[in-house]
Amino acid sequence: MTTVAIAGATTWGNTIARLLARKKIATSVWAKTEEKARILRDELHDASSDDNYVKYITFSNIIADVLKSADFVIWAVPAQNLRGVARQFHAGITDNMILVNLAKGLEADTGKRMSEILSEEIASISPERICVLSGPNLSKEINLGLPATSVVASIKTETAEKARELFNAPNFHVFTSSDLIGVELCGALKNVVALGAGMVDGLELGDNAKATFITLGWDEVVLLGTALGAMPATFFGLAGIGDLITTCAGNLSRNHYVGYQVAQGKPLHEVKAAMSHIAEGIDTTIAAHSLAHSLRFDAPIINMVYSVLFDSLPPAEIMVRFRNGLKPEARV
Amino acid sequence: MTTVAIAGATTWGNTIARLLARKKIATSVWAKTEEKARILRDELHDASSDDNYVKYITFSNIIADVLKSADFVIWAVPAQNLRGVARQFHAGITDNMILVNLAKGLEADTGKRMSEILSEEIASISPERICVLSGPNLSKEINLGLPATSVVASIKTETAEKARELFNAPNFHVFTSSDLIGVELCGALKNVVALGAGMVDGLELGDNAKATFITLGWDEVVLLGTALGAMPATFFGLAGIGDLITTCAGNLSRNHYVGYQVAQGKPLHEVKAAMSHIAEGIDTTIAAHSLAHSLRFDAPIINMVYSVLFDSLPPAEIMVRFRNGLKPEARV
Repeated sequence: MTTVAIAGATTWGNTIARLLARKKIATSVWAKTEEKARILRDELHDASSDDNYVKYITFSNIIADVLKSADFVIWAVPAQNLRGVARQFHAGITDNMILVNLAKGLEADTGKRMSEILSEEIASISPERICVLSGPNLSKEINLGLPATSVVASIKTETAEKARELFNAPNFHVFTSSDLIGVELCGALKNVVALGAGMVDGLELGDNAKATFITLGWDEVVLLGTALGAMPATFFGLAGIGDLITTCAGNLSRNHYVGYQVAQGKPLHEVKAAMSHIAEGIDTTIAAHSLAHSLRFDAPIINMVYSVLFDSLPPAEIMVRFRNGLKPEARV
Repeated sequence: MTTVAIAGATTWGNTIARLLARKKIATSVWAKTEEKARILRDELHDASSDDNYVKYITFSNIIADVLKSADFVIWAVPAQNLRGVARQFHAGITDNMILVNLAKGLEADTGKRMSEILSEEIASISPERICVLSGPNLSKEINLGLPATSVVASIKTETAEKARELFNAPNFHVFTSSDLIGVELCGALKNVVALGAGMVDGLELGDNAKATFITLGWDEVVLLGTALGAMPATFFGLAGIGDLITTCAGNLSRNHYVGYQVAQGKPLHEVKAAMSHIAEGIDTTIAAHSLAHSLRFDAPIINMVYSVLFDSLPPAEIMVRFRNGLKPEARV
């Protein structure tokens, strides 16, 4: 019998817990406090009293209890919190476990990917037992049982296959990939592009301008990602443009919302303060900006998003730069 | 002084006429009848009485008048009408003119691209003087002066450069490409994907499913396009995913509308009868389906759209096929 631990009771973590429980997989979710664990337990029972999957999910704030006999540990915390949580968990992780990261971001201070952070903080685990799940996956729709696809990537095929088997469900079709770097960068950097696309919408520049921004922004991401060791094809797959389209087109993206509000003239700290959830793209923009700088990689679009967020560049400057096609050397 | 003839008084043709007139380029638009020419003339003056660009546009139903001293002939008729219009015009075309096609479609009966049709029907013109303009270009936004980008492609660089110069404007940034086949196929086949994306929306499957459909559908288009001689990179540029994003995400696309209505259970002939404009994707689906068949190319997504439109496949079958990830061998 497969047993799963989920580190972090985020919206997406809870969605995955329900998806696994519906497959009758025993899933234990770690919440920060006993109080939080109790609230989540009550919420689950209230919302789903007539559904027998509920019995497969437990909540606890005791790491040792959550990890007990776990085959998989799923990391469902915001990207900037992963290092801290991994440190809290590391003593309980054994080398027979498979780690699956769900966070879509890069560490702001270091530019590191989430799998790198897990490797650094959990000495007992081989990089071959780490993977990422990423794709066009709006939680809300998956909770409703609407069909979706996703990608699980690992440097080791066997690990990806095992994780695929874990997550695959009638309405959740999971593919595997060996391009861990690419899938991680797709998930992280699409949030930067979504932030910028939100700015274009906030400036009310229209769908033509937005599509131009997304296309040239993604082109930049592909080149940066390739310079960082990813495979270009990954960026055009489900974890790439699939996720990008969902994030930029829908109105459900927090990153798009942040860009929109900032372009409408609200200071970033006010926008952040008013949000109950974290928009991963903000810190990931810092990471992407630093990575590009340290590689001496020309990233005019990432730099533009960065400058609007952190360097007082007036959002209207985006309009001015459009007149120059955003960048002279753009591929078409 | 540059002089332009536009064959066809379609919405997009009239938008381009206004764009050129604002650059003080004398533009003569051909309408089918004297009556239509008069109506368009009145509309233009009523809408823009205080704008002095109006004097640069003339309307006529006399082909010889429209073509007089034209340096460029712009083809702004629906794809299935281009051959007939080209036959009407061919006697007046001289080898010093540059032809620019605006239609985004393939001929249903032959699967041919618009530049192939122009070459076949106008013996006096070299293929080196034919180009296409294509990109994320919603007419409505361009009429409002919102910023947009587009791509002009020709097998001859010099021709593309000249057309770029013609169209480039402060809020209309034009890039050039040498991949005529690729840019034409992008514009045509994105309408097939948009039709299918409309079906996914019509079935109310959500944004995750829609993004999956678009991503795997476009993957199929790239492979088919490459088999037909296009460059893969073109499909990921402005004329490719740029146009695709605008068409599939917005609610302004006629092709998306057709797919939506059909998936909601309306017969195709009723949907078509109720529309005042042509949805190019319908006939282009016939062409794409035949092209794939004749190349023995595996195109499950194009075939699925075809079967729903023309072969009585119940739209709900799309949902069933999602459970299988749409196609087993999908790249991710």
